[in-house]
Amino acid sequence: MIVVMQKGASKHEIDHVIQRVASLGLKPHPIVGEERTVIAAVGEKREQHKEALENCAGVAQVMPILAPYKVASREVKSQPTVVTARSLRIGGGNVGIIAGPCSVESEEQIMATARAVKAAGATGLRGGAFKPRTSPYSFQGMKENGLKLLAQARDATGLAVVTEVMATEDIPLLERYADVLQVGARNMQNYRLLEAVGKSSLPVLLKRGPSATMDELLLAAEYILDAGNSQVILCERGIRTFETHTRFTLPLASVPYLQAKTHLPIVVDPSHGTGHTYLVPRMACAAVAAGADGVMLEVHPNPEAALSDGYQSLNFRQFDETMSLCRKVAEAVGRRI
Amino acid sequence: MIVVMQKGASKHEIDHVIQRVASLGLKPHPIVGEERTVIAAVGEKREQHKEALENCAGVAQVMPILAPYKVASREVKSQPTVVTARSLRIGGGNVGIIAGPCSVESEEQIMATARAVKAAGATGLRGGAFKPRTSPYSFQGMKENGLKLLAQARDATGLAVVTEVMATEDIPLLERYADVLQVGARNMQNYRLLEAVGKSSLPVLLKRGPSATMDELLLAAEYILDAGNSQVILCERGIRTFETHTRFTLPLASVPYLQAKTHLPIVVDPSHGTGHTYLVPRMACAAVAAGADGVMLEVHPNPEAALSDGYQSLNFRQFDETMSLCRKVAEAVGRRI
Amino acid sequence: MIVVMQKGASKHEIDHVIQRVASLGLKPHPIVGEERTVIAAVGEKREQHKEALENCAGVAQVMPILAPYKVASREVKSQPTVVTARSLRIGGGNVGIIAGPCSVESEEQIMATARAVKAAGATGLRGGAFKPRTSPYSFQGMKENGLKLLAQARDATGLAVVTEVMATEDIPLLERYADVLQVGARNMQNYRLLEAVGKSSLPVLLKRGPSATMDELLLAAEYILDAGNSQVILCERGIRTFETHTRFTLPLASVPYLQAKTHLPIVVDPSHGTGHTYLVPRMACAAVAAGADGVMLEVHPNPEAALSDGYQSLNFRQFDETMSLCRKVAEAVGRRI
Amino acid sequence: MIVVMQKGASKHEIDHVIQRVASLGLKPHPIVGEERTVIAAVGEKREQHKEALENCAGVAQVMPILAPYKVASREVKSQPTVVTARSLRIGGGNVGIIAGPCSVESEEQIMATARAVKAAGATGLRGGAFKPRTSPYSFQGMKENGLKLLAQARDATGLAVVTEVMATEDIPLLERYADVLQVGARNMQNYRLLEAVGKSSLPVLLKRGPSATMDELLLAAEYILDAGNSQVILCERGIRTFETHTRFTLPLASVPYLQAKTHLPIVVDPSHGTGHTYLVPRMACAAVAAGADGVMLEVHPNPEAALSDGYQSLNFRQFDETMSLCRKVAEAVGRRI
Repeated sequence: MIVVMQKGASKHEIDHVIQRVASLGLKPHPIVGEERTVIAAVGEKREQHKEALENCAGVAQVMPILAPYKVASREVKSQPTVVTARSLRIGGGNVGIIAGPCSVESEEQIMATARAVKAAGATGLRGGAFKPRTSPYSFQGMKENGLKLLAQARDATGLAVVTEVMATEDIPLLERYADVLQVGARNMQNYRLLEAVGKSSLPVLLKRGPSATMDELLLAAEYILDAGNSQVILCERGIRTFETHTRFTLPLASVPYLQAKTHLPIVVDPSHGTGHTYLVPRMACAAVAAGADGVMLEVHPNPEAALSDGYQSLNFRQFDETMSLCRKVAEAVGRRI
Repeated sequence: MIVVMQKGASKHEIDHVIQRVASLGLKPHPIVGEERTVIAAVGEKREQHKEALENCAGVAQVMPILAPYKVASREVKSQPTVVTARSLRIGGGNVGIIAGPCSVESEEQIMATARAVKAAGATGLRGGAFKPRTSPYSFQGMKENGLKLLAQARDATGLAVVTEVMATEDIPLLERYADVLQVGARNMQNYRLLEAVGKSSLPVLLKRGPSATMDELLLAAEYILDAGNSQVILCERGIRTFETHTRFTLPLASVPYLQAKTHLPIVVDPSHGTGHTYLVPRMACAAVAAGADGVMLEVHPNPEAALSDGYQSLNFRQFDETMSLCRKVAEAVGRRI
Repeated sequence: MIVVMQKGASKHEIDHVIQRVASLGLKPHPIVGEERTVIAAVGEKREQHKEALENCAGVAQVMPILAPYKVASREVKSQPTVVTARSLRIGGGNVGIIAGPCSVESEEQIMATARAVKAAGATGLRGGAFKPRTSPYSFQGMKENGLKLLAQARDATGLAVVTEVMATEDIPLLERYADVLQVGARNMQNYRLLEAVGKSSLPVLLKRGPSATMDELLLAAEYILDAGNSQVILCERGIRTFETHTRFTLPLASVPYLQAKTHLPIVVDPSHGTGHTYLVPRMACAAVAAGADGVMLEVHPNPEAALSDGYQSLNFRQFDETMSLCRKVAEAVGRRI
Repeated sequence: MIVVMQKGASKHEIDHVIQRVASLGLKPHPIVGEERTVIAAVGEKREQHKEALENCAGVAQVMPILAPYKVASREVKSQPTVVTARSLRIGGGNVGIIAGPCSVESEEQIMATARAVKAAGATGLRGGAFKPRTSPYSFQGMKENGLKLLAQARDATGLAVVTEVMATEDIPLLERYADVLQVGARNMQNYRLLEAVGKSSLPVLLKRGPSATMDELLLAAEYILDAGNSQVILCERGIRTFETHTRFTLPLASVPYLQAKTHLPIVVDPSHGTGHTYLVPRMACAAVAAGADGVMLEVHPNPEAALSDGYQSLNFRQFDETMSLCRKVAEAVGRRI
């Protein structure tokens, strides 16, 4: 941690900060510059309340040096984590493809979709049974019946079922049907839920909140890792910006950034990341080119009639074409789908 | 809902959309313009999947006309909602002041703070017992012991206790000690939690998520209202923008905007909204001038030693001065603290 | 400047950075921490290319310590700058009110507006003659004829004319008619223009660009100051965020922040900052409560017929009411309008 | 344009709006819904002051239907524009590669770079002679001497010179040395400059401002097209968001979005778009995969010693490797470099 004193801070103020730093168990290291004094605090242990030093008299700012996450860091584990669940394999050069409808709507819908995405090369099946919806008046999912249909689709195809968990109390039920628990963007900082999935034996796909920094995403992952579950997949699904022609802004530089900082694999969701079907295929290719460990895509037999997210879903033909392109791009950058 | 067709959309495509609109139970109303055809759909019922029409061939865009929220709307209830809890009164010209530490840390700390803020004119006491922290390594709160201390402070001062609920399973415990349940910014779209506090008999203070639009905030409130709890206070606590000199950006225009759209009272939190102690007093005044129904402030006996949020907490003297100013500003704009 | 080395950086890499720091004329000051080595570089001179050190092998990040601006800084000049132009006085406890139409449209319009805003207490008259418009198809202003009408309004009322300069080549013309040159938000980083107004004898009102950080705003001011013009007024007019119910987001914490960092006065423009007439009066009050040195407001005799910005203009009655409120708020916080 | 009336708007208010719409030369088309009346205005002509209708009594909101740009639109010209300048060819399946240093620093530097990027496959040479710098204390470029060196490098390699124009008065000078005029992000809405380059015979590369919406970018292009220059290249170089680990956020979905809306080619700049050398190669690949018509890259013989932008520049070896990868990705998606 670096404490920058104000220009003209008094000796008394500087001494007080040095003392406070020491009282936090850190070694203070004052550096007297031309314009101001800076106090480096060595031995940082990541407790965040040190920022309270900002409130000492004469302090201009406090700058942390260390990344706030630890177990998720590549400095702690340099080898990439590979997450597997049935036919799904994500990380270490494998680009996993998780595809399926936003919501499970009917047996016919989910079975047809599972077969179509499997045929086109997907290795995971997405589909919501418990749906967090912005409006209480929107379709909230088929609940357990949806889970049963997902399991049926998995049995028929071998695809790993990836489905969202909205609350701690649902975990036991979900564990009976799912292969991967998804924590949605809105729950990225629902810490109780993170701790709970951290105790599950299933891998967790953790979606980035639309205003979460990458540090916050890694700290959310840290909650899961810290609770004992090492099988965490990060998912970039777009952040919120001023641009409204796309529903979210999909910042693919998060892929190489995160891969430099963490050993956890990172999947990209161009469906939520763009919010419009016609933008999805190209952004799926771009995600693979950026080095994503997986791509997550919304696919529906008839998007214009979907009960949710139809505006960003691919139909079967579009998914098939997208997969062909992604496969070629993966080869071009030395990866395999 | 307005469906805008692409320039050059075929008669077949237009007819298909008209048919789809009718099949959703709406009355289609095509308008043939010079450049393109627009289809107004009358009888909108707020189901969101109508946006799936965007995926019909020939459609350029789908624009909703109605606000997506209903019960929270001032169109449904024109009189402002006034929320009361012990000495706290928010709405209808009363500016409630909720003050206290970020976290309850000790009996001495919370009792001293409660007395000091009461003396300076606060009507509510904030204080976290269950703390959602970005990092799993940060102080997570005193849990039930913290709640007991809050209740003790309330008994001594008459201040209404406002404290955060992090999970559905904690609600019964919190109801034994708290007067107002706070849903934090990170949980603004934790719908299961919203439904659960919607069944509580306590008022709810709902904080805006840092990337939530005002529509989304109102829809989150709608979850609570829809579950049966009409005592909802909205709280503006800053949004995330590119500016980093302030930890968040506090958009006070949300106060008059929301007051125009909803009957629910709106409180402003300049502590989280700015993230730096020296910015808080002026922004508290500005919030009152903007017409806020309440102000929420972090106060600590010794901010530089606080276990959380010290960098944005006022000490007792600063709080006292802030209250004097706010009181004058409230008078200036015809309100009372 | 603080250079943070990667964990595990080699001695060779560390030595190379120490050498590079020294070769930039700075005194390197290595600090060996538990996890990594940090090199403080003392004697910083604000040349920005030092960030190129980020590209040395083994470097994790480079953190500047000093603010990048200098002449604008309160550390260099602690007394607030007061800018005056005819009846307009901004800074040092005086809240200047600059009001008028977005564009000068006719003699009748500008004369009536000048008289009305003068009567209600304005001290400056705004009005565009050269209009930067997002679309080439929008009304572009009356050009020199508009300037003549502004001067005529000034002669009739004594109000200081504040009008926008779009290009270096227009400055001599503008200097014949205007009292304050406004640099618009879109030109905040048009450095050639900044240098040119820096050579003018007129004060300059510099609007913050909608995505400019406060550091960038101060650096833009620095261009003007550096060219010799010390009469610079900063103007907060809103930043661009994801929230679209307001056209921009008006971050009033920039007022106390900037006042802590710079001696230059700061004016707030709630018309552009909100983009909707009904939000303007309250945000004008909030700006005054936040300590703004001035407020800039769009006023039009008949907003619904305005050639530009009608949606955010006050009519005369609304302006009058806003002024009454602002005056009371100014008194409440110890300032005068 | 759709004018949405407030719920409960009076007949008088509705009639007034209908009249106002008609007085603007549009055909009003009222639609009486269950909750509110909507007035569609047919015959829209893109004059923007119609939004002033928002200020009529009883109006809730005004929604434009047509895109605000015209000549740039694919609806007006469906065939993609191909821009050529010497060996550079951008658009219509050709991926142009524009590479070179941020600033021209010396003959040795620019000649070596030109040869290296040419050898690796670049077709354009970038290099700044007039540099817009955030700080007045930063290196401002070699001015005309820099231009001469660029021309010398072009003569030696055949690469097209792309260089930034900062002010109208410099255009004649630049036209003597450059092949493509670049308008920088900070000047994207410097309309006088846009009009001036619109009269040049050279192609223009127009960079997106960091807070400009895509509509605003297209409207800025419209200024150039409208002035008579049809050779416009759009450049996505990143937008400003809350994420600071990357200097800007590079939103590649703007590539397919813009290609759907405009016939103008679009180039991506991953150097500015990410701000860190180690993120550039992957984002260059992603840009090509997303369908970009060109990529613009900062290359320097020795980035750690660069006078500007060293932190985001590739060295020769890194550029060479990036080109190999990009070439493969281009093939994978059916394009050629």
